[in-house]
Amino acid sequence: MFLPKKIIEEKIISFLKEDAGLGDLTTALLIPPDVIVEAKVVAKESGVIAGMEETLILLETLGLEAEAMVSDGEEIRKGKVLLKIRGNAQTLLTVERTMLNLLSRMSGIATATKRLVNKLKKAGFGTKVASTRKTAPGLAYFDKKAVKVSGGDTHRLHLDDMILIKDNHIAITGSISKAVKEARERVSFSKKIEVEVSNVKEVVEAVKAGADIILLDNFSPEQVEKAIKVLKKEGLRMKILIEASGKITEKNILEYASKGVDIISLGELTHSIKSLDLSLEIERQ
Amino acid sequence: MFLPKKIIEEKIISFLKEDAGLGDLTTALLIPPDVIVEAKVVAKESGVIAGMEETLILLETLGLEAEAMVSDGEEIRKGKVLLKIRGNAQTLLTVERTMLNLLSRMSGIATATKRLVNKLKKAGFGTKVASTRKTAPGLAYFDKKAVKVSGGDTHRLHLDDMILIKDNHIAITGSISKAVKEARERVSFSKKIEVEVSNVKEVVEAVKAGADIILLDNFSPEQVEKAIKVLKKEGLRMKILIEASGKITEKNILEYASKGVDIISLGELTHSIKSLDLSLEIERQ
Amino acid sequence: MFLPKKIIEEKIISFLKEDAGLGDLTTALLIPPDVIVEAKVVAKESGVIAGMEETLILLETLGLEAEAMVSDGEEIRKGKVLLKIRGNAQTLLTVERTMLNLLSRMSGIATATKRLVNKLKKAGFGTKVASTRKTAPGLAYFDKKAVKVSGGDTHRLHLDDMILIKDNHIAITGSISKAVKEARERVSFSKKIEVEVSNVKEVVEAVKAGADIILLDNFSPEQVEKAIKVLKKEGLRMKILIEASGKITEKNILEYASKGVDIISLGELTHSIKSLDLSLEIERQ
Amino acid sequence: MFLPKKIIEEKIISFLKEDAGLGDLTTALLIPPDVIVEAKVVAKESGVIAGMEETLILLETLGLEAEAMVSDGEEIRKGKVLLKIRGNAQTLLTVERTMLNLLSRMSGIATATKRLVNKLKKAGFGTKVASTRKTAPGLAYFDKKAVKVSGGDTHRLHLDDMILIKDNHIAITGSISKAVKEARERVSFSKKIEVEVSNVKEVVEAVKAGADIILLDNFSPEQVEKAIKVLKKEGLRMKILIEASGKITEKNILEYASKGVDIISLGELTHSIKSLDLSLEIERQ
Amino acid sequence: MFLPKKIIEEKIISFLKEDAGLGDLTTALLIPPDVIVEAKVVAKESGVIAGMEETLILLETLGLEAEAMVSDGEEIRKGKVLLKIRGNAQTLLTVERTMLNLLSRMSGIATATKRLVNKLKKAGFGTKVASTRKTAPGLAYFDKKAVKVSGGDTHRLHLDDMILIKDNHIAITGSISKAVKEARERVSFSKKIEVEVSNVKEVVEAVKAGADIILLDNFSPEQVEKAIKVLKKEGLRMKILIEASGKITEKNILEYASKGVDIISLGELTHSIKSLDLSLEIERQ
Amino acid sequence: MFLPKKIIEEKIISFLKEDAGLGDLTTALLIPPDVIVEAKVVAKESGVIAGMEETLILLETLGLEAEAMVSDGEEIRKGKVLLKIRGNAQTLLTVERTMLNLLSRMSGIATATKRLVNKLKKAGFGTKVASTRKTAPGLAYFDKKAVKVSGGDTHRLHLDDMILIKDNHIAITGSISKAVKEARERVSFSKKIEVEVSNVKEVVEAVKAGADIILLDNFSPEQVEKAIKVLKKEGLRMKILIEASGKITEKNILEYASKGVDIISLGELTHSIKSLDLSLEIERQ
Repeated sequence: MFLPKKIIEEKIISFLKEDAGLGDLTTALLIPPDVIVEAKVVAKESGVIAGMEETLILLETLGLEAEAMVSDGEEIRKGKVLLKIRGNAQTLLTVERTMLNLLSRMSGIATATKRLVNKLKKAGFGTKVASTRKTAPGLAYFDKKAVKVSGGDTHRLHLDDMILIKDNHIAITGSISKAVKEARERVSFSKKIEVEVSNVKEVVEAVKAGADIILLDNFSPEQVEKAIKVLKKEGLRMKILIEASGKITEKNILEYASKGVDIISLGELTHSIKSLDLSLEIERQ
Repeated sequence: MFLPKKIIEEKIISFLKEDAGLGDLTTALLIPPDVIVEAKVVAKESGVIAGMEETLILLETLGLEAEAMVSDGEEIRKGKVLLKIRGNAQTLLTVERTMLNLLSRMSGIATATKRLVNKLKKAGFGTKVASTRKTAPGLAYFDKKAVKVSGGDTHRLHLDDMILIKDNHIAITGSISKAVKEARERVSFSKKIEVEVSNVKEVVEAVKAGADIILLDNFSPEQVEKAIKVLKKEGLRMKILIEASGKITEKNILEYASKGVDIISLGELTHSIKSLDLSLEIERQ
Repeated sequence: MFLPKKIIEEKIISFLKEDAGLGDLTTALLIPPDVIVEAKVVAKESGVIAGMEETLILLETLGLEAEAMVSDGEEIRKGKVLLKIRGNAQTLLTVERTMLNLLSRMSGIATATKRLVNKLKKAGFGTKVASTRKTAPGLAYFDKKAVKVSGGDTHRLHLDDMILIKDNHIAITGSISKAVKEARERVSFSKKIEVEVSNVKEVVEAVKAGADIILLDNFSPEQVEKAIKVLKKEGLRMKILIEASGKITEKNILEYASKGVDIISLGELTHSIKSLDLSLEIERQ
Repeated sequence: MFLPKKIIEEKIISFLKEDAGLGDLTTALLIPPDVIVEAKVVAKESGVIAGMEETLILLETLGLEAEAMVSDGEEIRKGKVLLKIRGNAQTLLTVERTMLNLLSRMSGIATATKRLVNKLKKAGFGTKVASTRKTAPGLAYFDKKAVKVSGGDTHRLHLDDMILIKDNHIAITGSISKAVKEARERVSFSKKIEVEVSNVKEVVEAVKAGADIILLDNFSPEQVEKAIKVLKKEGLRMKILIEASGKITEKNILEYASKGVDIISLGELTHSIKSLDLSLEIERQ
Repeated sequence: MFLPKKIIEEKIISFLKEDAGLGDLTTALLIPPDVIVEAKVVAKESGVIAGMEETLILLETLGLEAEAMVSDGEEIRKGKVLLKIRGNAQTLLTVERTMLNLLSRMSGIATATKRLVNKLKKAGFGTKVASTRKTAPGLAYFDKKAVKVSGGDTHRLHLDDMILIKDNHIAITGSISKAVKEARERVSFSKKIEVEVSNVKEVVEAVKAGADIILLDNFSPEQVEKAIKVLKKEGLRMKILIEASGKITEKNILEYASKGVDIISLGELTHSIKSLDLSLEIERQ
Repeated sequence: MFLPKKIIEEKIISFLKEDAGLGDLTTALLIPPDVIVEAKVVAKESGVIAGMEETLILLETLGLEAEAMVSDGEEIRKGKVLLKIRGNAQTLLTVERTMLNLLSRMSGIATATKRLVNKLKKAGFGTKVASTRKTAPGLAYFDKKAVKVSGGDTHRLHLDDMILIKDNHIAITGSISKAVKEARERVSFSKKIEVEVSNVKEVVEAVKAGADIILLDNFSPEQVEKAIKVLKKEGLRMKILIEASGKITEKNILEYASKGVDIISLGELTHSIKSLDLSLEIERQ
């Protein structure tokens, strides 16, 4: 997800504008324009860092010098100094909250993602942990990027990405077979087609119709097991990727993985966040 | 926080644009342009609803008819139908995720806020539960609105709101007294001045310097008690409002409230979210 | 490529704003505000129509009534009335040029695309005709949509679409095998991987490395033939899609198709346009 | 058409944003962040360059060093190195297509314009070659600029430019005389008034009514000749400029010029483009 | 200056957004969402109305019904009801100030313009009163429109309008003759050329060089008289328009007009404003 | 009102874009691209400077070197050189008018504000001079900033600032007491509540209901006197701030101040402007 700085800058500055309103009054009242300070961002709890690249762009854009002490994707301990900053005090105080909100949120997402990625890896599974489109509104780039730096899969970035045929599409089209066939006929060659299914019978129908990926929606581990068994029996398992989604949590993720799915996706990675606790400590020069 | 529909519409449509990219390909491939559907949004868990006003504006803007079955701020049970929608299937399928992301997030914030508000109310305290500026970047309006509909206090909306003199401002200015005095001299008459303090001595200094509100930062309940005792002794308690912040959780909130603070603010109300689980069920007409 | 009207409207209105400047002076000087006119858009030459959906949105947004007499993708003869419009004369005269510029350009693209699509179809080939990212700057949605309505393939919509490993990526990575392997390891499961190759040896390397699609760049028909022969011999042909690009024109397209490629892409579909000649005829009511 | 870099930058970056989506995935997967490359843009065919100024702004804005080897308006031969670039590989690969799309399109317009300008010049005519408002939607600045660097006339830039009274305005106003008189009365002194006419009788009426410029719409060369003869006879020729438009092509342009018109305008200069074939060649450092 | 409503709407809504911030808190606290009110805008002083068209668009966009009792350009007396409004109370209270700010400012400009226009007309002069580019930043459309509705001349709308060669251009180019000649050679046929001169000698030079309009900058009435006399003597007066600017006020405008200039322009029409006093009176229904 | 440069830059560049249109044609025709000039901004009349900070940002953003010879808020004499500029001639000529429009307007506001502030100060009153929300549409930041640098009070910045209960709110709510009570109950603790009253009786009602500030609307000096007397008698004067507004001018401001109000607000500070006369003098290097 490489974007030139100029584009990221524009997104981030819009966050600052919202928070600044017509200006930081407290800072204007109390801080002389020419004060230079040094500051550091410190982790108040352990976790994984994401958003450092974006933070550096934000600070640089505002004319503040910044040096990152950790990289995106790095696991850090409580107390770690993440970032050193030097520059105009008015500017730094004005951007403080916007900067921390972004870095904390993205690091919170990265921390949760990494926990699941590591859990699967330690248990010896190659299963991918994927996010969904259940991001905070307007924050898809940042939420997906945070998932990515922790080794998670970004899944669809927007609606013009891969084809994902869901229950509602199937209902209106008439059947899974018909939906997959029609989609395949009309879709660009550059796109994969994934089909959401709700039972084992549909799994086979979708694969036979030519889907590239099957999304097992709200399957129990047992249903997953059965679906894969049937596919193997029919010699269809190698032709497709299998994603499981719904009802999967940190608790039961290993059980799902053990059934042999390729991808496990969880909406909560991006819709239910625990921000990583970070703080800015300023020292006057 | 009343905003004309036109302004809210613009904010929300920007969310949809991000998610849509160059278009919903799956829907374009499979759904004929003239299909009309009826649908409903159903709560998959109990909670408090926020974002209904914004959701109605979004749907109406896109030409979909919508009827809200609950109002913002209302507590609902799992299974409750929140919203009925009727209109073009392509449009509805394209907006589905953006709509649910917004409504789920805002309802998640409202649910968490209400839990604390109710806890204090049931225990007989008049203490206000306030959010902070620790919102998701770019979502201040929506996060604050969600807090508000559950009876929470929005606190500062942006940096041009109330004056809030924090440790860094004090460090650069020299002292609390000096900072408050300078701020008072230069600030608009229309603004309150709040001062963040870190110990009891500073509380008294801030009040005597003329602060309107004192923010007890990371005080233990015992420190809070002591601070208030001292203020009462000096006859200063009635002149000011007292806000406590930092280290306060759902567990110890009653203990803090019992010490007599006026406001308790929690960053987690907006920076650490558990979205309310909602789903859209579509029926073809 | 379905987008809600609201989003398309915003794109199109920005075109009108550029052309309008501070206003249509001639119209303001000469046309009374309350004149209602009827008008029609007529084809001055035969071709295929695209942009009708967008044109209807533009007119409706401005409060003009419009009725399309043809649909996007339809082949029409010179003299055909494409669209009937009724409404405020000032508004219609102001939007005339923007409307025709859009409809003519998109129809020009659709006409050229259809000619190639039909040529292949008539010759009995199933080969897809694809556009590239060589669109006019800022017009990707409209250029791709025009290709699509004529049965062309949109190929990648933007850089966050399918992975396309080109010569420069390979040069920096070291080798085709290494590039494909690294990409596969890190890419989302939802993406296909295409590799651009410049000779037959690379074709095999790319397929063996696991590419989903091979882009034969600037191959002569003979080279294409040889590449496919080799792939068949090694039993690899069915595992992949083959795209040919570069040096292909309307003249030699059948020759390329006859060699058995799946997709033929041509930059000129969108970078070198002949707009379809259309005109607006207004009648006063 | 001088615009400060900051304004041009904003227009061009919007093109890049459209193409980039949430980021260049291929580049992010395969190119390390710190690779520096040198590259050059090479002409694959002969033509006239336009868009170099805009290209340099684009590259500089993204932090890439660039040195132009040719200037806007310069005629170049196939094989010519137009531009040398040095900088971050990820950034360059991401911007490659947007840069080439802009430079190729503008150079294509400049090449076609120059061909006509030179043709007239060589034949000894002082007639101006003008573009129209038939540009690609949203690209007026770029299309007009490309015409200009080749010595073409930009004609009206937008609708708040010169007054141009067309058939529809005349029809609603009642007559040419009435339209010109009303326009003259109400228009700013800073504007010229041009009138579109469809026969010789109208030419005289328009000139007598006080038009500054007459647009002969779809006149045959013979009609043009007759119109000018009549004007001369009435001693009106020197009072006005004469523009011919419609049905004029590269083939018959000299014939029109020979009849003595001052300006010949052609919509195809900007609505029907053949982009100049350019390519970017990257070398790793 | 006709612009479609959609474009004006966008400009005006941006004003409302600035004023609204995150919302009208007072209104949200006190006014129930379903209150319908009737209101009227009343003139607290006499003057000329401008901005009514824009005000109606603003109100309509927000869903408020509005009926104008006067038209733009109309002279009204103190006490006159200008506008009747009916609709949602929250919305009306939120937009009240933005609406009045726009209507008062534009009417203030129209009132001042009309005073001068009438003064010249009553004295029997045909001299035009023109504004300059000295508008409030960002408000060119509104300021110029207000001048226009009172019969003033809008002069250049932006820098891509007529050519205006000023002292600084002449200084860098070398001489008036050289500047006019070079401009004439390169400029589009659609543009007039005006030259700013500072003494009588330059007037003649500019006219002979081929300027369309001469701007007498900071000339005394006597200098104006002399300049025109010289031009007449040389038989050049009829070939050009003469504009006087600088040092001209309501007091001496007739004296300048009496010397025979065609246009008198005054920066103060748009840079120094006295808003017309208007108020909104609301009645609950 | 401190805002980071990046945010101010964006606002100011939008002004330049409006004025530039598709470019400064005169400058493009006559000024070579590589001319470097030195220039200075000179005051043509005495006054107070505001907008210097914004002007420096504008010039720097465009790549022009600038050195301010005075600071915002400084009183200067006619003839004073305010600013020295060095850089590209094309750029400077293009930005000249936008720069002067901004600096002249803000300085005009600052000059008028300072006159009142000084008048009160010299007369020995501590009364604050406040602006209102009657700014030019879209220019709230700049208008308020200009008031501020001259020691004026910015009053409410937007509608999400302090609560200000006006006659219309009271009419709909039912009574002052009810309105204040309801507002107090629901409002954030961070906001003050001001109430607009129209007679002495309402003053007392508002204070007793718990308002923080009373706005005496259109009171005569005698009514003000009486209101304050009554408040003192009831021992309520010290509990509140008193603002007077309406009918107050430079002439009678001392009389109002003498009655003991805390704040005097005047809409004319920002709605009726006399720009400070400034000019740019360019010298070729």
